[in-house]
Amino acid sequence: MASHQLYVAPPEALLKPLSVPSRLLLGPGPSNLAPRAQAASGLPLIGHMHKEMFQVMDEIKQGIQYAFQTRNPLTLAVSGSGHCALETALLNLLEPGDSFLVGANGIWGLRAADIGERIGAHVHPMIKEPGGHYTLQEVEEGLTQHKPVLLFLTHGESSTGVLQPLDGYGELCHRYQCLLLVDAVASLGGSPIYMDQQGIDVLYSGSQKVLNSPPGTSLLSFSSRAKHKVYMRRTKPFSFSMDVMLLANLWGCDNKPRMYHHTTPVVGLYSLRESLALMAEQGLESSWRRHHEATAYLHSRLQGLGLQLFVRDPATRLPTITTVAVPAGYDWRDIVSYVMDHFGIEISGGLGPSMGKVLRIGLLGCNASRENVDHVAKALKEALQRCPRNKL
Amino acid sequence: MASHQLYVAPPEALLKPLSVPSRLLLGPGPSNLAPRAQAASGLPLIGHMHKEMFQVMDEIKQGIQYAFQTRNPLTLAVSGSGHCALETALLNLLEPGDSFLVGANGIWGLRAADIGERIGAHVHPMIKEPGGHYTLQEVEEGLTQHKPVLLFLTHGESSTGVLQPLDGYGELCHRYQCLLLVDAVASLGGSPIYMDQQGIDVLYSGSQKVLNSPPGTSLLSFSSRAKHKVYMRRTKPFSFSMDVMLLANLWGCDNKPRMYHHTTPVVGLYSLRESLALMAEQGLESSWRRHHEATAYLHSRLQGLGLQLFVRDPATRLPTITTVAVPAGYDWRDIVSYVMDHFGIEISGGLGPSMGKVLRIGLLGCNASRENVDHVAKALKEALQRCPRNKL
Ligand SMILES: Cc1ncc(COP(=O)(O)O)c(C=O)c1O
Ligand SMILES: Cc1ncc(COP(=O)(O)O)c(C=O)c1O
Repeated sequence: MASHQLYVAPPEALLKPLSVPSRLLLGPGPSNLAPRAQAASGLPLIGHMHKEMFQVMDEIKQGIQYAFQTRNPLTLAVSGSGHCALETALLNLLEPGDSFLVGANGIWGLRAADIGERIGAHVHPMIKEPGGHYTLQEVEEGLTQHKPVLLFLTHGESSTGVLQPLDGYGELCHRYQCLLLVDAVASLGGSPIYMDQQGIDVLYSGSQKVLNSPPGTSLLSFSSRAKHKVYMRRTKPFSFSMDVMLLANLWGCDNKPRMYHHTTPVVGLYSLRESLALMAEQGLESSWRRHHEATAYLHSRLQGLGLQLFVRDPATRLPTITTVAVPAGYDWRDIVSYVMDHFGIEISGGLGPSMGKVLRIGLLGCNASRENVDHVAKALKEALQRCPRNKL
Repeated sequence: MASHQLYVAPPEALLKPLSVPSRLLLGPGPSNLAPRAQAASGLPLIGHMHKEMFQVMDEIKQGIQYAFQTRNPLTLAVSGSGHCALETALLNLLEPGDSFLVGANGIWGLRAADIGERIGAHVHPMIKEPGGHYTLQEVEEGLTQHKPVLLFLTHGESSTGVLQPLDGYGELCHRYQCLLLVDAVASLGGSPIYMDQQGIDVLYSGSQKVLNSPPGTSLLSFSSRAKHKVYMRRTKPFSFSMDVMLLANLWGCDNKPRMYHHTTPVVGLYSLRESLALMAEQGLESSWRRHHEATAYLHSRLQGLGLQLFVRDPATRLPTITTVAVPAGYDWRDIVSYVMDHFGIEISGGLGPSMGKVLRIGLLGCNASRENVDHVAKALKEALQRCPRNKL
């Protein structure tokens, strides 16, 4: 028998207590927690397979069905962030060799394309400059040319601030035997989306944006068409933890006794349940209205500061996350740091293709208020006065 | 423009407040939260890319290095449960066609084999009856016969109650150019493990067992040998969200500026940080001792009730989760339900190959006390008196 000894000592940094600052999170997410979601985080743990937990999961399912406006039985929360929901969708919908059409007008389409390639799909990205969206005609050209089994579109393109119209796209896809997958991580609850009526086959969203829950869970639903594609696969998906047939069972979507699959993030699900409850109480329409109003007010305040909105067409401006062109002569990093250091407010720069081009300001869920707009406008005004100009 | 309307109403169940019962969680996990981990769950959110969060992540890394007794720079927390850590390891270590040797003496090896097959590896499971473990000689036979690039062993086989010895296995694997991957989800902090000294190449564990944190994060570390295999891959892993090269960057393991990869479960990481801090304060040796003592006491109490320990060899009994043979004439479900319904205590039945054969009682982290042993022994005694016999 070998004899071993402890040779790594207890780290000093861990012997100090944890403390975290208070921040106003007006970036593209995560947003501040709804007090009720935060309170739920502090509740005692129960088992992931206790009947009370199945009840919480059932309520979450119903909450998602309401938020998505869908009656899909195959609706569940994913134990992971938005990326995990996207990957769960793609790993289950695509098989190697499948043709996959991707609206790539910002980072999220690029991510979908990356994942599609890892899976061995034939990926056809429709690359577009940041700020643009896809017309029905453009999509139809892609469908005709590439005969995809799946189209990916981002409803709320949070890296560019674009709202992608969705009316007619599902119908169009179905005419070409293609499924429609939509990312609503940054738009759900902020802008209308009607999964069933718009013919969206797979829809996902996150917990940490308009829902004001902690990051770590996400929302996912499959139409019967999409479910059919998943259940008729020739091969098993490359992932066990993201296998939708197994997740469907765990979430009670298949009328079979639920089997242990993985330990779900019980505490995160408590919060998600509370956030969905708030959405149900408040009503989707009032949530959409509140985001629309707060963001319209933000736009007017930004324009009052001489700033230019990055998305030209008002009809395709996202009512949750606003992009502003980086004002001439400034380094965006200076502005973001100033607002953080002097006001404790998070705003952010661009991401992926919009990096260096924009500042991003999010008004998400309970953060969508005139009061917060006043805070960030004041901070920005001061930043524009104090930050160095013509530095670049 | 189509016009849509809300047709799914706010669900009634969600209009009621959330309430969860208090339970003593003496199953195989999750365990009850450490008060400090639970308090951390209620802290306000900060951004996943704020410098204070990077500090928390650095502290977590150091805490994992201490708990694993490793100096591996490539050490991080995975944003997911134990399965996600296992899958992250396999998706990055294996390429299609690789030979993969699996110790399958319970459910966890079967899961590893399932994932290996999804990836397209040649999987060689060494199937063994529940209750058994692998000798060096058995492993050497597998290595000679299958020339694997990777061997999977479960340190704490929580479905069967077996503790797999680990001395000499790493060295043996390395003699055959094989990497050693070990699951310590159910054993870390309860039984000694010395990653570096035992030559373990990849080690993972969970948050929700001895660490008494909420489920949803897990611990993962790669030796330089394992890192080399990952960085020399011919193909990208099938998953973006589990790509270790990208995660290594996010966790500051590669000396490059950290880039956004996904939104980490900030609140779960707060708790994990606190749980690792508790482990560092208390010391690994004292934690091992406490589990050993509490579990020895449990064994004596169970034997006092006439129950038989499922694992025959005392040297391979897991000091965290104890398996008892289902007593003759009883239905295990009756016993589990009785203890839950009358005492609010969770114990559990078998899982996978041990289903129907055992009852499982976990003493994990702060739950490992004589007091809890007395509670569960009392509950079991009453259950044995009151539950129907010769029912099966
Ligand atoms: C539109 C959109 N899609 C996907 C994601 C990815 O989500 P996560 O960071 O939770 O993985 C985000 C996150 O910002 C997003 O805004
Ligand atoms: C030994 C072992 N490995 C892996 C797992 C899987 O972990 P999770 O349920 O967190 O996915 C468990 C969970 O019980 C376990 O005990």
